[in-house]
Amino acid sequence: MNKTIHVDLGERSYDVTVGPDGMDTLVEVLARLEPTRVIVVTETNVGPNCGALLTHLLDEQGIVPEIVVFEAGEVHKTLDTASMVLDQILTAEPAIDRKAVVVALGGGVAGDIAGFVAAVTLRGLRWVQCPTSLLADVDASVGGKTGVDHASGKNLIGAFHQPSAVCIDVESLRTLPLEHLRNGLAECVKHAVIRDADLLEWIAERADSLTMWDYDDEELAFDATEMTELIARNVAIKAAVVSADEKEAGERAHLNFGHTVGHAFETAIGYEQCLHGQAVSLGMIAANEIAVRRGLLGVACRDRVRAALEALQLPVTLPADVDAAEIWSIMQHDKKNRGGKVRMVLASRIGEVDIYDDITEAEVSAVVNDMKS
Amino acid sequence: MNKTIHVDLGERSYDVTVGPDGMDTLVEVLARLEPTRVIVVTETNVGPNCGALLTHLLDEQGIVPEIVVFEAGEVHKTLDTASMVLDQILTAEPAIDRKAVVVALGGGVAGDIAGFVAAVTLRGLRWVQCPTSLLADVDASVGGKTGVDHASGKNLIGAFHQPSAVCIDVESLRTLPLEHLRNGLAECVKHAVIRDADLLEWIAERADSLTMWDYDDEELAFDATEMTELIARNVAIKAAVVSADEKEAGERAHLNFGHTVGHAFETAIGYEQCLHGQAVSLGMIAANEIAVRRGLLGVACRDRVRAALEALQLPVTLPADVDAAEIWSIMQHDKKNRGGKVRMVLASRIGEVDIYDDITEAEVSAVVNDMKS
Repeated sequence: MNKTIHVDLGERSYDVTVGPDGMDTLVEVLARLEPTRVIVVTETNVGPNCGALLTHLLDEQGIVPEIVVFEAGEVHKTLDTASMVLDQILTAEPAIDRKAVVVALGGGVAGDIAGFVAAVTLRGLRWVQCPTSLLADVDASVGGKTGVDHASGKNLIGAFHQPSAVCIDVESLRTLPLEHLRNGLAECVKHAVIRDADLLEWIAERADSLTMWDYDDEELAFDATEMTELIARNVAIKAAVVSADEKEAGERAHLNFGHTVGHAFETAIGYEQCLHGQAVSLGMIAANEIAVRRGLLGVACRDRVRAALEALQLPVTLPADVDAAEIWSIMQHDKKNRGGKVRMVLASRIGEVDIYDDITEAEVSAVVNDMKS
Repeated sequence: MNKTIHVDLGERSYDVTVGPDGMDTLVEVLARLEPTRVIVVTETNVGPNCGALLTHLLDEQGIVPEIVVFEAGEVHKTLDTASMVLDQILTAEPAIDRKAVVVALGGGVAGDIAGFVAAVTLRGLRWVQCPTSLLADVDASVGGKTGVDHASGKNLIGAFHQPSAVCIDVESLRTLPLEHLRNGLAECVKHAVIRDADLLEWIAERADSLTMWDYDDEELAFDATEMTELIARNVAIKAAVVSADEKEAGERAHLNFGHTVGHAFETAIGYEQCLHGQAVSLGMIAANEIAVRRGLLGVACRDRVRAALEALQLPVTLPADVDAAEIWSIMQHDKKNRGGKVRMVLASRIGEVDIYDDITEAEVSAVVNDMKS
């Protein structure tokens, strides 16, 4: 029942495995890598449950991992946290060598921190990613982007460092809060808009079953086969885009659909009040609105995307106090801009997008103001 | 009169230019890269002189660099210093983008810090290396190794990040203290031993002229053409080794000749009392002594290397208080060791070396004790 997607990056290629037995796959993968040490980097939310399970499974293989736990939360995705993790890895006994393997266990923040630490320890250790949130499953699991935030902005310090393998355990999503699952579904909608119109219909039809909640067991009640298919389709889209453009010189920028304005919303509204997926949902609404006003995108396509986001209970309107001038100012400081121009990815139909670097303040302001509820 | 060596690393290839007009070459190279910003990372020893000259030359091209200065010295090659440099780069106005270029101006430490910062800023900025010590010219200028030290050991945190170009300014070596020039000459002897017997003769014959001191001007009096040739030959050797093995999986380890024991001497004697080149000189003596006792190397070859090092006034005997057991213990913790074995590079004749991972404590102890003056 597991599905495997090959990420083709020449000598840096690797496989992403998705399914209900992800943890067992992880243990098999680790055994094949013949590591001298296994260092599991995880955070305080995930460590107690998944970390204990993983330690148990590794123990059966005779592998005793070193577990490094950091405080959960995007506010801790800093160089200071990475430095603390490095201290623990570099002072562990026996001393690690270049054949050690780092395991990133947790959501996007764990992947970013653990991947970055792996990238800079002894100038690059192998690492295996075991994402435990839908957002990390469909987004961070492909592409090798690692890094930490800086006071000046998100992900400003980091490295491209491809993992040796990614093992996605679908069952570990059961205990995810529902709003975090929706967070990941926003990125799935994004993938559909940039590459796969069929996927948008597939998601819209299954909006209820994917987000079903079991009130007795207090966990998500999705069907594991359906969730495996969703994740595998999304990983395949991202893998195709990243394979074509590993270092983000061109086409990979399509993945920023909904993100240029989305990041600005996230900053303006505040990371505590607005999850990443919610910001991306709002960003996609804004991008499509700009595309419609430019005459690029038909209103029917715009409405189908909006309907899918609403079915997933993702936000489509902005709080009244969002200031259009502030949004524009934040967009101008986005690290992906070149020579001061503001770039956005806009759709011409569902499944087809292009990059535009002539976005004006007037366009953004008009749309931001119209999006207020 | 400039010489250019091509470092062949596929899509990461670059040129090293050596000559008396290195600063002018640097400015030309920077102009060709069409950077949106130029950030010069330098240290307190080099900044006041070379930094001012570079700023002046860039100014003539209409480029206004951002200068970031950190405290000189190996003790400052830390993640904290890198973090301080990152803070300055990431808060500079206007905000940098991915088309910015970092210039590493200074000795090995500046190259390591600036290169590492370039590697992790926005997941990788282009950088140009402008080394200002002979050691950095012939060693750090090729290979893309960047990084910082950790309390647990040297260079434990870092990245492989190839520069876009390296510009070596021979005239900037004039003001180098004589012992720092000798520091670099130790690495030149190392290159000769691992790959080029003719180079050893060439250096031995010119030991006096290369290290000549002008007491009137209080600077080095080497002939610029001779120094250019020395550096170019050494860069070419290192480039050939690195091209064959970029990520240090095999042959590149030959460059560690004299370094396994050398690093241990450096740690035991103390970085303040023993420059890197002096430690490497002692390490080469030890390695050759072990090779002779194994019957690998003839005594005539051993004596030729020793004579060259003595002619360059590099140390060949150890202080009496060096403890053989401590040296062995430090060697066991070297990050290049695998599975607890101690590896050394040993010569079978001048120009030919191999890797041995069966080095015993008895061999090392005997040689260390015999090397005491």
